[in-house]
Amino acid sequence: MTATLEPTTAISPQRRIETWLANFEAALAAQDIDGVVGMFAVDSFWRDLVAFTWNVKTVEGRDQIAGMLRARLADTTPSGFRTREPATADGDVTSAFIEFETATGRGSGHLRLRGDEGWTLLTTLQELKGHEERKGATRVLGAVHGSDPDPRSWAEKRAEEEATLGREKQPYVLVIGGGQGGIALGARLRQLGVPSIVVDKHERPGDQWRKRYKSLCLHDPVWYDHLPYLPFPANWPVFAPKDKVGDWLEFYTKVMEVPYWSRTECLSATYDSDAGRWTVEVNRDGERMTLHPTQLVLATGMSGKPSIPTLPGQDIFAGEQHHSSQHPGPDRYVGKKVVVVGSNNSAHDICKALYENGVDVTMLQRSSTHIVKSDSLMELGLGDLYSERAVAAGMTTEKADLTFASLPYAIMADFQRPIYDAIRERDKDFYARLEAAGFELDFGDDDSGLFMKYLRRGSGYYIDVGACELVADGSIKLAHGQVSHLTENAVVLADGTELPADVVVYATGYGSMNGWAADLMGQEIADRVGKVWGLGSGTAKDPGPWEGEQRNMWKPTQQENLWFHGGNLHQSRHYSLYLALQLKARYEGIPTPVYGLQEVHHLQ
Amino acid sequence: MTATLEPTTAISPQRRIETWLANFEAALAAQDIDGVVGMFAVDSFWRDLVAFTWNVKTVEGRDQIAGMLRARLADTTPSGFRTREPATADGDVTSAFIEFETATGRGSGHLRLRGDEGWTLLTTLQELKGHEERKGATRVLGAVHGSDPDPRSWAEKRAEEEATLGREKQPYVLVIGGGQGGIALGARLRQLGVPSIVVDKHERPGDQWRKRYKSLCLHDPVWYDHLPYLPFPANWPVFAPKDKVGDWLEFYTKVMEVPYWSRTECLSATYDSDAGRWTVEVNRDGERMTLHPTQLVLATGMSGKPSIPTLPGQDIFAGEQHHSSQHPGPDRYVGKKVVVVGSNNSAHDICKALYENGVDVTMLQRSSTHIVKSDSLMELGLGDLYSERAVAAGMTTEKADLTFASLPYAIMADFQRPIYDAIRERDKDFYARLEAAGFELDFGDDDSGLFMKYLRRGSGYYIDVGACELVADGSIKLAHGQVSHLTENAVVLADGTELPADVVVYATGYGSMNGWAADLMGQEIADRVGKVWGLGSGTAKDPGPWEGEQRNMWKPTQQENLWFHGGNLHQSRHYSLYLALQLKARYEGIPTPVYGLQEVHHLQ
Repeated sequence: MTATLEPTTAISPQRRIETWLANFEAALAAQDIDGVVGMFAVDSFWRDLVAFTWNVKTVEGRDQIAGMLRARLADTTPSGFRTREPATADGDVTSAFIEFETATGRGSGHLRLRGDEGWTLLTTLQELKGHEERKGATRVLGAVHGSDPDPRSWAEKRAEEEATLGREKQPYVLVIGGGQGGIALGARLRQLGVPSIVVDKHERPGDQWRKRYKSLCLHDPVWYDHLPYLPFPANWPVFAPKDKVGDWLEFYTKVMEVPYWSRTECLSATYDSDAGRWTVEVNRDGERMTLHPTQLVLATGMSGKPSIPTLPGQDIFAGEQHHSSQHPGPDRYVGKKVVVVGSNNSAHDICKALYENGVDVTMLQRSSTHIVKSDSLMELGLGDLYSERAVAAGMTTEKADLTFASLPYAIMADFQRPIYDAIRERDKDFYARLEAAGFELDFGDDDSGLFMKYLRRGSGYYIDVGACELVADGSIKLAHGQVSHLTENAVVLADGTELPADVVVYATGYGSMNGWAADLMGQEIADRVGKVWGLGSGTAKDPGPWEGEQRNMWKPTQQENLWFHGGNLHQSRHYSLYLALQLKARYEGIPTPVYGLQEVHHLQ
Repeated sequence: MTATLEPTTAISPQRRIETWLANFEAALAAQDIDGVVGMFAVDSFWRDLVAFTWNVKTVEGRDQIAGMLRARLADTTPSGFRTREPATADGDVTSAFIEFETATGRGSGHLRLRGDEGWTLLTTLQELKGHEERKGATRVLGAVHGSDPDPRSWAEKRAEEEATLGREKQPYVLVIGGGQGGIALGARLRQLGVPSIVVDKHERPGDQWRKRYKSLCLHDPVWYDHLPYLPFPANWPVFAPKDKVGDWLEFYTKVMEVPYWSRTECLSATYDSDAGRWTVEVNRDGERMTLHPTQLVLATGMSGKPSIPTLPGQDIFAGEQHHSSQHPGPDRYVGKKVVVVGSNNSAHDICKALYENGVDVTMLQRSSTHIVKSDSLMELGLGDLYSERAVAAGMTTEKADLTFASLPYAIMADFQRPIYDAIRERDKDFYARLEAAGFELDFGDDDSGLFMKYLRRGSGYYIDVGACELVADGSIKLAHGQVSHLTENAVVLADGTELPADVVVYATGYGSMNGWAADLMGQEIADRVGKVWGLGSGTAKDPGPWEGEQRNMWKPTQQENLWFHGGNLHQSRHYSLYLALQLKARYEGIPTPVYGLQEVHHLQ
């Protein structure tokens, strides 16, 4: 490593990165794994999205890096490492967006050096050679110029395709669940020419949003929420209302030509490992059909199945009880007393809408909750990557996504903690008002805030858009503790407190996504796959051991040809690419030797 | 003008432009009209889109510039002229994109100097002060943060708005015709907060395209076709098939929240000049309704009403006869003999599809036709502004539109002619094959090619996407001359030639758009408004005198509060802004003194 012989201060960030990349590439080309590993710091991280590992995998430290390369370097044959734009430096750390290629594809990524040593490296597969997406300069012509041997119009070809897909022609991929995750993946598979069907039980695309409680708006801002290919326009709201999101998803599905079956419920799925394909029974708008996809993707919602606690007296309670996912909004409850069990996002949204419609509402806080004001989160949490300010500074969605993906989960909490320290300081009066009202706050087990809670457990927080002041001033009543039982007309807490209730809303969260797998494929497959989501951080609801990546998401599982896809709009956009490329490679018969297939440590 | 004292070669293009703009602004500020005019060349042009004239107006030469300024300078009070990006030079000509403001708005434009003299100046209004569109950094929040005094959701507000608009609440603007023109204008009016309704007779938005002949694709490439706010994605075809365009328009209407009434026919419109409003009778899906808009926009298609020649024997002919706009496509004519009267775009498209479906088809050429191969037009005609190459070179849609608009119509033919000279040379073998087959070619009266024909008469050409080779090799039969009469089973030409026919398609073009006005408002108003479209070039179908702008398009007409909007997707995008701003200013009560209201020289 010649670079380390030069004095650190003498060379530009760009020169420093280029030197490192040149040495890196030379060592890779020479299959000199010791040489490669020696270029990394002892506490270094290489995160790979499909490019080297055919997996979503972070290797941590020199030994793991060496292990991955011993397994994968020979047939990956990476080359052409270069920067995409000038490198930048911040103190001891030099960073750059990079590009490279492998035997089978072209990739992009991100590199951080500490001094002259590799600290974090992200490598992502962006396209498969010979199977590049047709867009921009290579977009399809559309019209057939010259005499056309196929006299059918676009509409006629589409109609025939729709009529035969799933009947004469089997899909290679079946995506179960047509929310933003299924739709984004469906759009990518369509663009990649992989025969697929997205099935969904609702009347039409977007109903996954339309049918939620009426006050729901996106809690993430527009810059974070773009779908692939077609970003929201400049006149789109920062936080789009649910029905507007629904309309967009419907529009998007149509113009992206996603093969989408509405009103379709999956009844069962069994895997024939000899044939290497699934048999899936579906009810399509009353018609029983059998599909034989090779690959099955569950995109039924990262939150999994609604989780309702079993409580004594639920059978006696005379009023209405429902899970938050079934809550229709406030209109029919005017004049009634509502108890909302739970104190996370849905609980706050529902309580706020109920109060604003004149309903007597009590929120039951069962455990401490992490609260962040929306504008603080936008400014301090997302502003550098996803905001109008970021756009003005030249940040693109693609660069923001790569930057976001470049931080290894193992050290992400360290990057997050200072943001939440700043938020605590900025909003200290706000937090004081909440605590004075008796609201129990937390900032995560290790004070790392909202995003880590999301990645670890997908729950435990509320992004405040106004409900908190209603809690602070008593407009939304607050109660604490666990539910002991229900009576005919009240929720009774463990300490004996009685909360009169005509309606109980269980804003009590969701189970693991493999609950869907259990329903469709049986408990055996669900247990083989194990818990979905979470990092193994050893914090609440995310038991260790450390996994390094989110369990089972967007990558091969212990069940052959079964995949999980989901998450927020950002994840649906970004990770759908890597899942789509994994499926495309298999469809085309490209070898996909998976490195480091995850082990299963928890069943649910 | 101090700039002229410096040697021409010594200063940078940017410095030259800045010096001119500084002197220009100083003379404007001093109301020194002679000084301003002296900065322009004798043969100079100032094109203004609403910013100075509240009109779409080109003033030509120093006298006309002086006349416009004498009328409009005092209350326009322009200031802040500056470049948007570094100026460029090409030989003697220095060019720059500019920005400026006026008392009421902010504008952009384009300036060309020849030497140090102003040659072409474009000034366009981009927004009204105090009425800026909310987008980008000022986009709406969407979610209401904090306690919401209005508990209705977005969907509920939209539903109520739809229920009351046109009943309890009258639209300020009624747009008749919901193709790309009406939809683009509707989107802009929505964004500007002007209560409007777009009405259209079809079942749903996009049917204007869906219901045309089945082989139809856009003849203009995607980069030229973007609608406001929401450009087509990178995976969109170069030439989109009609049904795909239809789907895009339908969902664009929805996501842009354009108030759009499908299945609505306008029956009559009368103007009450005392009240300053219209009474419009409509049939909305069977319900008779009366609307009272202040402004009425006809966006019923730039091609106006189908024009079918009256021929002896049409009543005797035993087969099917229809105008090209009613032509369904080839499927039902297999095994029949079809004569297509005409040799422009529709005639070629229809003949090609008929031939490819095995139909015996004859094209009747009545006069010479301008033919350009699609790829030549794309490369030589549009490539610098609207292409993947242009995008890669940093050309944006906005800059391309400004550049396009910056060429005064009076000299546009001079800019176009060299392009078509190059095309003639490039495709000389192609043209020779066509002529050898007897096809009569032209390149416009003054050899200025397709775009000038489009602007002058909207007809007389075909953008070749393959039909020409079928004509050249005789697959599509070719006949020449005028129709004498029809018999029971043939079209007979003036020279006695008899063309056996089971079907006659009249691809014979369209009348002036004020034909729609005559139907709705009576001949008196149609005659007051006069001919729509065309420049007064004195070439075929575009009689003089010279108008300087397209007749009656996107600007005040001789009928108060009546407007015309239309054209291709490019014009629907670009000129909808200026029409929308004129309407918005009137809606807000901003004075809009029109300079140079056009005179009427031709009735149709």
